[in-house]
Formats: sequence, structure tokens, C-alpha cells
Amino acid sequence: MQRYFVTNQQISGGTVIILGNDCHHIKNVMRMQPGMAVEAADEAGNVYACIIDQLASNQVILKIEKKLDRNTELPWDVTIAMGLTKFPKQEEVLRRIVELGAAGFVSVEMARSVLKLAFASEGKLDRMALIVKEASEQSLRNKLLKVFPITGFKSFLEMSKNFDLCLYAYEERGKADDFSLKGILQNFSGRSILFLTGPEGGISPQEAEKLDQNGFHAVGLGPRILRCETAPLYAMAVISYEAELKNES
Amino acid sequence: MQRYFVTNQQISGGTVIILGNDCHHIKNVMRMQPGMAVEAADEAGNVYACIIDQLASNQVILKIEKKLDRNTELPWDVTIAMGLTKFPKQEEVLRRIVELGAAGFVSVEMARSVLKLAFASEGKLDRMALIVKEASEQSLRNKLLKVFPITGFKSFLEMSKNFDLCLYAYEERGKADDFSLKGILQNFSGRSILFLTGPEGGISPQEAEKLDQNGFHAVGLGPRILRCETAPLYAMAVISYEAELKNES
Repeated sequence: MQRYFVTNQQISGGTVIILGNDCHHIKNVMRMQPGMAVEAADEAGNVYACIIDQLASNQVILKIEKKLDRNTELPWDVTIAMGLTKFPKQEEVLRRIVELGAAGFVSVEMARSVLKLAFASEGKLDRMALIVKEASEQSLRNKLLKVFPITGFKSFLEMSKNFDLCLYAYEERGKADDFSLKGILQNFSGRSILFLTGPEGGISPQEAEKLDQNGFHAVGLGPRILRCETAPLYAMAVISYEAELKNES
Repeated sequence: MQRYFVTNQQISGGTVIILGNDCHHIKNVMRMQPGMAVEAADEAGNVYACIIDQLASNQVILKIEKKLDRNTELPWDVTIAMGLTKFPKQEEVLRRIVELGAAGFVSVEMARSVLKLAFASEGKLDRMALIVKEASEQSLRNKLLKVFPITGFKSFLEMSKNFDLCLYAYEERGKADDFSLKGILQNFSGRSILFLTGPEGGISPQEAEKLDQNGFHAVGLGPRILRCETAPLYAMAVISYEAELKNES
């Protein structure tokens, strides 16, 4: 079923007004007709089964049939922080962590980042928002992931104070066969997790020290060296596994 | 440390002979000199700390210093089978599952595969072998993943008889919140796992029935819909998590 994310203003009474690219998508890409079924998700994560009522030139009007019960959101709010790297890699990670259920994403300028904050255009945030919307519709999310503005390392440490649990993937811990991640996740009773993975060259020892001082836990993601685009996917997959997959077969 | 995979014939006595692309890589890319340290991995998964002894025009001769103890291989032999899809997606999955520790990879022509076996050039296998070698060197694997020739569905069912545990990711099970994967992995006492994920359009109900008849277990990978390139990464990450990450923090 095709799902569209809309703002709360687009919903009133029993109708949803679809605008812009989504209107184009329904009319010209999907070539849908009045009477056909789609889903609309609001900003609070409610999803509604709808029927197309009218196709106008600039808008499509949907009639809400009923609110759907199914919730596909992770029980934990997980924000992936990633060492600032080139945009194609950021975008690929972003697309996949949406599928894997992340609630937030932030790029952090780190010592070994090949791309620097001063050269990282904020204009990319619009493109990232579009990626999030598309991936959320395809993976049947209830809520849109939040993309935070690219940040420096100091501001990131400040930001981390808003989370119940802060983790960072540190390959030195992986090499030392210190794999505490499972214990930490299994004992977690909070709500929000911030999970930092490094840029291409990894997290520097100085950064690791700062992270430790700010209440982060260093964790290994297995004994092999993961590329910077793979580590966030590992993190999200095992968080989903721990939080969502039942123990009973 | 730079690692090179070599055949057993390239090792004799206490020396390793590096040829071809690897010779070019040491001399012209890394610009290494005699006396510098590299690692060589043989076909059995042994890794040796070596010193560059001589740089000749067509070969580099290494002197073995010692055998390294560290083993980064998953305790389980996991082969990822993936519904045949376009090559860039296959290659991306291949690169990442090498990092995540997979022992084998096979593309399977399935009912909803957009690419068909008859049009899937076997010439791609050479390129895939190169990807495996590069990714194995970067992620510090001990052994090279085996790429099987692209196969039809019937031959795949035959092939599955060689594995202790056969799983397939079925989104209908995810939608039904039936998440038996954790229980299955936690109770697994065998050695080899075959894990099938579908092509873009997913696994057909007819194929699911055949898989069930052939001893496969259908498993859900969480409540969201994963793209065909994401599902194998989820599978490998949670297998690593279950098999390699200790419970004690």
C-alpha cells in the first residue's frame, strides 16, 4: 500500500489534502484514480487508511476511512551520529537507518573527517529530508526520522546530554575482543539512545577520551574492521534485534 | 597493517611471493620499501606477520616473521543467498557481508528477479572475486568468502541440503510480528547457516512453500519493510551479535 507523510495542517475533519510532489506522484507516477486506496501518516505517527476522493490540478483530496492500529516504530528512540563524511555515503547510511527504524541522524565533524564543517553545505538538509520521506514511505514507518544540522564535536557532546544512553563504536575495543554491547542493550531500561560511529579514519584517541568523560560507553562491533558506512547499519540491526524480536520461537 | 591474501603455492619455507595486482599495490600504490611490515593470509586462514625482503620487477618477496594468533572469523559458516538482482546491488551487498563475516555468497534466480539467469553474465564472477579480496584485506578477515556461481531456484534447494540450518527472510512473517529468529539463533548448535533474502519484489508465496517443504525456516527481520540490499546486512549483523558478542559487559 502506498503511504504518504503529511503535516498536521493537511488533515482536517475526515479529509487529507495531498500537495506538491506527492500530488504529482499519485496523479502522474502511480496514475491513481478516485476510489483507490492509499495511506496517510501524520506528524504524530498516526496512520490512516484513505480513499482518493478528488484529483484536482494542484491537490489530491483523500477521505479517511479508518485509523490503522499497526505501529512499526522501534520501542527505543535511536539517533545515529556519524563522523562527517562525503555526502553520498551519508545519504546511503541515512536511507538504510530509516528502514532499520532510527529516530534521528546527525553528522558530526571529527578530527579525521575528510569533509570539514565549513565546506559542508547546509543546503543538503533539504535533500536529506526528501530521502527520509521516500525511505519512510517505502519501509512503512509511522514517523519521519529527524535530521539534525551538521554539528561540531563540542556541540555534539552538549547534545548528548539529552539522551538516556550514549554509545560509540570504537574499533580498539573490537580488536581487544571487548564486546560489551549486548550486555548494555539487554540491561537498558531507558527510552533514548545516541549511537556514534566514526568517519573513515575512525575515532581518534583524544575524541575517545572526551567521549568517555562525557558519559559515553565504548563498544566493539565484532572482531572485524567495519567501514564507516557499515557500522551504523550494524548498530541499528542489533538494536532492532534486541528490542523488537521476541525470544520465543 | 596492510594484509594480502595469497594462494598456498605463493608460500614456501619462510617466504611469501607476492604477484600481479598485489605486487603493483605494494610497489606503486603503497610505495613500500624493503624492511617494511605487511601481513599475508593463506588459503587455510593462517595470517603471517611479514617483512618486505626484496622488490623485483614482477614480484615482491616477503620474509615471514611469525604466525599471528588473532582470528577474526565468525564461529559459524554463514552463506548469504540473495534473490538475483542487478549487479551494482549484488556487489554492494557482497562487499558489506565480507566485512560482516560471511563465508559464502550466492545469487539465486527467483520468480520476482528483475534480472534473469540467462542474462546474468558469469564474467561478473571475476569482478566479484576482486571485491571479496579487497574487502577481506580491508576488514582484516582471515579467510576469503566463497562466491558460488549464480544458480536457479531448484539447484539452490539442492545446495541447501549441505547446511545445518536454512533460513529465509519473509516479510509476511515480519508483518505478522512473528520474530522467531532470535530463538532459532540462540538454540543453534551446528556449524553452517544458509540465509536467503529475496529480490526487489520479495519471495513469492509459491517459493515460500517450496522453501518450507525443503526444511527452511521463515523468519521476520523486524516490523518494517527492508529493501533487498538491506536484509542481508541485517541478517549478518545479528548473527555476528549473537555468535561473537559476549553477554557479560
